[in-house]
Amino acid sequence: MSICTARGFKATGAAVGIKGGGRLDAALVVSDHPVNCAAVFTQNKAPAAPVQLSKQHLSETQGVVKAVLLTSGNANAATGEPGLNAARTLTEAVATSLSCASDEVLLCQTGLIGIPFPLDSALDGVGGLASSLGSSESDGELAAKAIMTTDTFAKQVVIEGDGFVIGGMAKGAAMLEPDMATMLAVLSTDAELTPSEIKNALVGAVASSFNSLVVDGATSTNDTVIVLASGTAGRVDLESFEDALAKACVKLAEDMAVDAEGATKAVRITVSGAATDEEAHQGARKVANSLLVKCSLNGEDPYWGRVLSEIATAKIACDPSSLSISYGGTQVSFGGVAVAHDEATVAAHMAERWISIEIDLGLGTGVGSILTTDLGHGYIDENRTTS
Amino acid sequence: MSICTARGFKATGAAVGIKGGGRLDAALVVSDHPVNCAAVFTQNKAPAAPVQLSKQHLSETQGVVKAVLLTSGNANAATGEPGLNAARTLTEAVATSLSCASDEVLLCQTGLIGIPFPLDSALDGVGGLASSLGSSESDGELAAKAIMTTDTFAKQVVIEGDGFVIGGMAKGAAMLEPDMATMLAVLSTDAELTPSEIKNALVGAVASSFNSLVVDGATSTNDTVIVLASGTAGRVDLESFEDALAKACVKLAEDMAVDAEGATKAVRITVSGAATDEEAHQGARKVANSLLVKCSLNGEDPYWGRVLSEIATAKIACDPSSLSISYGGTQVSFGGVAVAHDEATVAAHMAERWISIEIDLGLGTGVGSILTTDLGHGYIDENRTTS
Repeated sequence: MSICTARGFKATGAAVGIKGGGRLDAALVVSDHPVNCAAVFTQNKAPAAPVQLSKQHLSETQGVVKAVLLTSGNANAATGEPGLNAARTLTEAVATSLSCASDEVLLCQTGLIGIPFPLDSALDGVGGLASSLGSSESDGELAAKAIMTTDTFAKQVVIEGDGFVIGGMAKGAAMLEPDMATMLAVLSTDAELTPSEIKNALVGAVASSFNSLVVDGATSTNDTVIVLASGTAGRVDLESFEDALAKACVKLAEDMAVDAEGATKAVRITVSGAATDEEAHQGARKVANSLLVKCSLNGEDPYWGRVLSEIATAKIACDPSSLSISYGGTQVSFGGVAVAHDEATVAAHMAERWISIEIDLGLGTGVGSILTTDLGHGYIDENRTTS
Repeated sequence: MSICTARGFKATGAAVGIKGGGRLDAALVVSDHPVNCAAVFTQNKAPAAPVQLSKQHLSETQGVVKAVLLTSGNANAATGEPGLNAARTLTEAVATSLSCASDEVLLCQTGLIGIPFPLDSALDGVGGLASSLGSSESDGELAAKAIMTTDTFAKQVVIEGDGFVIGGMAKGAAMLEPDMATMLAVLSTDAELTPSEIKNALVGAVASSFNSLVVDGATSTNDTVIVLASGTAGRVDLESFEDALAKACVKLAEDMAVDAEGATKAVRITVSGAATDEEAHQGARKVANSLLVKCSLNGEDPYWGRVLSEIATAKIACDPSSLSISYGGTQVSFGGVAVAHDEATVAAHMAERWISIEIDLGLGTGVGSILTTDLGHGYIDENRTTS
């Protein structure tokens, strides 16, 4: 179960001196031959150097690439021209070691923003990554571990499709909101697909997974999801591939929610009965972004009044008189007032790791959901200083 | 310095049995004669019973009222028809005690949502408030204290205008974001103004004060700001009144920021050089709503990379190459990269109670600012459970 599960890919991870102290901080994913690829990137208007460079490389190669280099510990964001030069130098070092063109190498970086990238420390190690590539499960796991920052476990996925396989890895911790997160994900498949087929499937998969995940409303400078397709399994049913890719991305997004900085709860907020799917999504996002709701979740308190107050200010069609709120399937409010219910059942649900809040607006057929977390001391402790 | 400073008003506060334990929980502000009035209310689509009733009363009386009753401890929100009946009964009790019509009494309530209002406990006490009305400073202070919930100090203001006075009181703690907060404010003046003149001045004052305050992005069910004008000072210059009212509201909003639940910092985020004032405001709001920025402020860490990342995802015109970020007047970033600066000066500023973050987009002449707070353990502890 790793990025190497699909045929045609090797990977590795190593400590190259970005984080220091011998900690894993660089991963390399390489295809046996140049392969078709598509990617989606952060919408942040101050994209990091690796995002700028990877976009350029994908455009130059028209979506045919050989490798993805990922580093952790320094985001190489808000680092200006020196940062862009460092990014170029890193991809050139990988290209030299793989005997390919430098624009066949994509780059993902994650870590602190605004700190010059330590190129001198990292360059030798990055150039040497190719020598330890392998296609075993442990090689893939090493890569997944090397991209972790404040993650507490490596995030990997394998989905077996009809005649093809998708493997993937991701990192994500805080700064999680639409248009992705401080999250990087690379997925590989042996299916044969054109770059535009991959892109279409990826856009759909991201919408229902990473872009439906809200931890703290922050859209990072570095978010990137890349899919590589080696084609060794031949042509596949496109719809079946799209479904499988969406499943893989949802699994990685759920891992991110469970492992979000300081989170004690992973929470699915579902809005139904909305005027449109878009309004359902917008309502769920408003509730998910509520600090008060997040605090209640941390305290395992089914304080539905806050949920009502948030959904009623989500700037969507909403009438309290037809509105129902349930926790884990137990209705606690209808028509804007409390409903008698089995409090022990709700208390037991609130004590679980996964919590579900269901809001039915009772107006239309629109449905949408958002994955989020609670807010506890741990998040603050993790983020109050960079030291 | 109180709601009684302007001539023509009396006030009082008392414990009427909503909170229990003899704690102050009801205030009454009464004008000597029916006076012109205007108010703004929450935009929440699930407004509390007192908001629904006060809107109805203002409409029935065309803005001429005699008294405002304020209670704390129970928001009387999401309480359905029984809640609305309780609200009516409270205003009728006050009307009887003052020998006025019940629609000449406005009602503001604050506290927990979704819990039936304890009318039986409170009714006698509310009916008896009129007997202790007075116009001294201590009477006004008693009223200001009686509307506190998790506030740690009473919030009052007096502004001396050219030939008139404005006095006011407010409460606010968490749930602070545009379209006001879990905040109630009543202001009184001796200026002679029509209801529509008061409304115009109030809308402007609220925009630059309460609606420019963001603590946690929550818009409560109960937000209300009321201005009463006794007219005893005669006609005044309208522009001068508008300025004075804005000053009074800004002072009360600043008190709310300083006293926000669990906050250790009050923070002014100013965006200049934006394409328009609206975009400047939107950018400042995006930064103010960032949990990561708020955590950094709690840790006194001038982590400008997060500010950059937020402003660059605010969906406004923004180009990192012309963007400057300063803390307390010291520039720390320009053009999307770090700028050498006196770190001791910035550290000293970060250690203060009031912090200023200045973002110059370098694009146009648009300016806007938002008042906010840091995010610390205290906020979570205050809000994780209702018990």
